[in-house]
Amino acid sequence: MSVYKDRVEQLFPTVVGSAEMPQKLKESMLYSLEAGGKRVRPLLVYAVLDTYGIAPEKADQTACAIEFIHTYSLIHDDLPAMDDDDVRRGRATNHRVYGDACAILAGDAMLTQSFQLIAKDELLSADKKVQIIAAVTEASGAPGMVGGQLDDMEAEGREVDVQELEYIHARKTGALLSVALQAGAVIAGAPEAEQRALEAFGKHIGLSFQIKDDLLDVEGDESEIGKPVGSDETNDKNTYVRLLGVEGAREKLRYHTNRAFAELEQVSGNTAVLKELAAYISERTK
Amino acid sequence: MSVYKDRVEQLFPTVVGSAEMPQKLKESMLYSLEAGGKRVRPLLVYAVLDTYGIAPEKADQTACAIEFIHTYSLIHDDLPAMDDDDVRRGRATNHRVYGDACAILAGDAMLTQSFQLIAKDELLSADKKVQIIAAVTEASGAPGMVGGQLDDMEAEGREVDVQELEYIHARKTGALLSVALQAGAVIAGAPEAEQRALEAFGKHIGLSFQIKDDLLDVEGDESEIGKPVGSDETNDKNTYVRLLGVEGAREKLRYHTNRAFAELEQVSGNTAVLKELAAYISERTK
Repeated sequence: MSVYKDRVEQLFPTVVGSAEMPQKLKESMLYSLEAGGKRVRPLLVYAVLDTYGIAPEKADQTACAIEFIHTYSLIHDDLPAMDDDDVRRGRATNHRVYGDACAILAGDAMLTQSFQLIAKDELLSADKKVQIIAAVTEASGAPGMVGGQLDDMEAEGREVDVQELEYIHARKTGALLSVALQAGAVIAGAPEAEQRALEAFGKHIGLSFQIKDDLLDVEGDESEIGKPVGSDETNDKNTYVRLLGVEGAREKLRYHTNRAFAELEQVSGNTAVLKELAAYISERTK
Repeated sequence: MSVYKDRVEQLFPTVVGSAEMPQKLKESMLYSLEAGGKRVRPLLVYAVLDTYGIAPEKADQTACAIEFIHTYSLIHDDLPAMDDDDVRRGRATNHRVYGDACAILAGDAMLTQSFQLIAKDELLSADKKVQIIAAVTEASGAPGMVGGQLDDMEAEGREVDVQELEYIHARKTGALLSVALQAGAVIAGAPEAEQRALEAFGKHIGLSFQIKDDLLDVEGDESEIGKPVGSDETNDKNTYVRLLGVEGAREKLRYHTNRAFAELEQVSGNTAVLKELAAYISERTK
């Protein structure tokens, strides 16, 4: 996993550096790209290629594109007009360093460049590129991540039920995690049935990811998770722990992790790295 | 021209309505899409198809996508963190109606959906879709529109020379106008040399467009241009009129309009609509 993490991180300066743009914009984009993070989405793309024994080169630009989209969403979500966060991963948020205007534009630029990365990928056929762009725009746009973020903000201060919470998170975080697997499956040329199984795997680990986040907020170590323990409760956030209790949330996490593993039974290749990732998502300490 | 304007405007509710998303997001997107406007960019795409005698259907989704990108850029530019505008085209700006958070997300959603529109176009080959997406991301991202917007904001309050002003506007407004022609040329399958001529035509009408905007700010009719005459000077903006005077700006406008017409000499089809558009851009009263 750490090989793939290094791999995608090494692409950022080259990709951003290759485009002509104002120096401040470049710095602002790289500041957030290089702020660290688990790189779960790129890892998922690479893990699918690994499953089918395909060289990782073919996934480089797509993996990078999906991390660009994740990073742009964090920059915009942190803005004063949105979640108004000053600190992320132990560093000042983008707009605290570069100003709100530059942060908005850096996000816009990264979102735009992500589709360019896929469109200009020289290792993929035009057909595959179009399929990936169609899937990624669906997952990251209004029907997916953007819509989920708006619903999440609108739900603040009012109690939601588990079904609504799941609907919000399936779009806000699940869709992009799931499309990372779908994109990997397209690149690898996985059979249709296996593509569906990988997408279903993605949906379950997406939910696991969120439940684990909620659990870490009450059980985690502040120095590891990079924010005060209990901040969700302080901020009156709708979480699985709040709705189901710690035990209920743990049980739901086990359920989705098991369902994720079950989906992998239908995948023909060597799913070792995918399994490692699924286990990491439910057992991580940060 | 008005036929094509109606044509693209009729697509907006269908396109936005076809995606599942929060109702507020949908309303916010349509509010800005339906706020009026000259629709110059879609008209340029259609005009190129008209030149080569190709049915407009083939340009529908690309024309719509480029207008989505233009509209998203207006929503983000109007935000308090950017130009802080309360009124556009005689109506309250998006964030004044739906709030800053929803306006940011509506812009993000429209930018994302624009690439989906192209990727899912059933009338174009995968090769053409990829070519168009590559060109549009270049024109609208960090090397183009987004970078130009940042440089424009950073240049506020300091005097720039004509060369710098041109470099800013070539990216901020010119790149997207020019890529509308380029996309039309790709759809139409125009010969390489004619694609280059159409792009060059686009660069000249892009500059004409901006010079005319600056002239209208001092010579226009308030009720037509939708903002107070002289507002550029009040806001200490860098304009062609400020740098060259009214006569100098008029001369520069004539120069670029003539150069635009000259480029069309190299285009084989019936360029009547393109000529009409070029004339409109330099003679318009709003």
